[in-house]
Amino acid sequence: MALFGTIEGGGTKFVCAVGTSPDDLRAKVTFPTTNPEETLGRAISFLSVQDPLDAIGIAMFGPLDLNPTSATYGSVRATPKPEWSRVDVVSLISEAFGVPVGFDTDVNGAALGEGRWGAGRSLGTLLYVTVGTGIGGGGVIAGNPIHGLVHPEMGHVRIPRHPDDSFPGTCPFHGDCLEGMAAGPAIAARWGRPADELGTDTGRAVEFEAFVLGHAMANLVLTISPERIILGGGVMKIPGLLEATRVQMLTSLGGYVDVPAFANGAVDFLVTPELGDRSGIAGGLVLAEQAISRLNR
Amino acid sequence: MALFGTIEGGGTKFVCAVGTSPDDLRAKVTFPTTNPEETLGRAISFLSVQDPLDAIGIAMFGPLDLNPTSATYGSVRATPKPEWSRVDVVSLISEAFGVPVGFDTDVNGAALGEGRWGAGRSLGTLLYVTVGTGIGGGGVIAGNPIHGLVHPEMGHVRIPRHPDDSFPGTCPFHGDCLEGMAAGPAIAARWGRPADELGTDTGRAVEFEAFVLGHAMANLVLTISPERIILGGGVMKIPGLLEATRVQMLTSLGGYVDVPAFANGAVDFLVTPELGDRSGIAGGLVLAEQAISRLNR
Repeated sequence: MALFGTIEGGGTKFVCAVGTSPDDLRAKVTFPTTNPEETLGRAISFLSVQDPLDAIGIAMFGPLDLNPTSATYGSVRATPKPEWSRVDVVSLISEAFGVPVGFDTDVNGAALGEGRWGAGRSLGTLLYVTVGTGIGGGGVIAGNPIHGLVHPEMGHVRIPRHPDDSFPGTCPFHGDCLEGMAAGPAIAARWGRPADELGTDTGRAVEFEAFVLGHAMANLVLTISPERIILGGGVMKIPGLLEATRVQMLTSLGGYVDVPAFANGAVDFLVTPELGDRSGIAGGLVLAEQAISRLNR
Repeated sequence: MALFGTIEGGGTKFVCAVGTSPDDLRAKVTFPTTNPEETLGRAISFLSVQDPLDAIGIAMFGPLDLNPTSATYGSVRATPKPEWSRVDVVSLISEAFGVPVGFDTDVNGAALGEGRWGAGRSLGTLLYVTVGTGIGGGGVIAGNPIHGLVHPEMGHVRIPRHPDDSFPGTCPFHGDCLEGMAAGPAIAARWGRPADELGTDTGRAVEFEAFVLGHAMANLVLTISPERIILGGGVMKIPGLLEATRVQMLTSLGGYVDVPAFANGAVDFLVTPELGDRSGIAGGLVLAEQAISRLNR
């Protein structure tokens, strides 16, 4: 059985592992995301001392150049983290190991991982959305991660606002886009304390948060028609938020999408990740495997 | 070369043809959509007198059951046209001709047709959105039409409203969803005359319409990241509307998606159909061909 390296590159930390599945990780390391030389150097050092790898998969923060015909395929595009802009991640890893390298966004990776081993098993079309310090979304359609012009940036869609909600939003690009209204920093700015300190006396925090997220989930249902949406990230740990988001999603749909999956309140449709914090690492394993398959086609 | 039958089933008319490509249609007929027996009977009568067909593709109004493992695959789901609810279109056509039958929504079909012969040639990921008496959207990702839970119903997404716009919308399900704010009946209700009678003195009609459509296009860019969006339908013939929609889409994106395709005002990104009113018929040809490929896999 092939042995894979996997790198989950987040904005605040990197997780690297070696294995064949998320339940068979032979070694794993976590370290903070600093500058690219140091961070990718640590990833390479860790992977270098493992048993020989057949392929490596990288699921990392974007924006990324995922166009295989582009001269800068495999690199980070212009990003708010200036040190990382234009860093050619795939070439660095490929040259260090000489094995096939798979590469996609963290959220497309998480969708692939959950689709193989987690909450999206056996589904052809699923989405993974994370609500944390930012909001990101990725997905798989008929087995293919979603990309085209670039890759999805689902956190920045515009949604209607709650009629009583005058919060201007925190997104430096858009103000009141989804991320600007509903990510962790928006909650902290809006209520004066972070999501994990809201406690159970959440007042209107859950109502406003679920209004925004529920409309966003409804728009995803209407746009892509996924068989399931996996909703992860720290903000979703606010008590009652997942349940309130399901209710708001169905309210927003207004009965228009009449499917058995929605008959029981969408409890099996809008779900949390089964792999917990291993979704991204699992995605890297799938990306590694796909990199080999591509070579053999 | 294989000869295909193609059926474009619209809410108001059916178009049936026989050929190998939209530039090689050997015969074609158009008739109004009435009850299913009469309408599908006319389609079968027309196709029966042609040369022997290798496969037939059907691109038609939904909602449709497109799940190949469903007991009711190939039928119309519950629809505002009650006579058509639960009609098993694929079985009727299959039994009449004994050849493979492809089946998808009118808008996924149009995306497939434009992708093969029209404005989406050589693109892996493209969307087709039509703005007419309703608003519908479909698309192709890595060659696969988008479906999952059901199929996209892009016309019913919610978008923010223009600050000066108090129009309640015309959608019986949602009021002010995209279709409720921007389809033909919304324009007629809002301005007291249909889109094709607005003339050049459109006042704020273009501004309001472009605001809604531009936000919707931006959300599609952020959600699916298509390489191109093809925007068809009668409403898009309003002078200046396509251009204003491009401007509003880019305004809504706020510079967040920084790609060459947007550098020139997105004139090659947000485009009209190249096949004109043949997109759907072309899609049926692709669906027929895919039905044969699926058999041979």
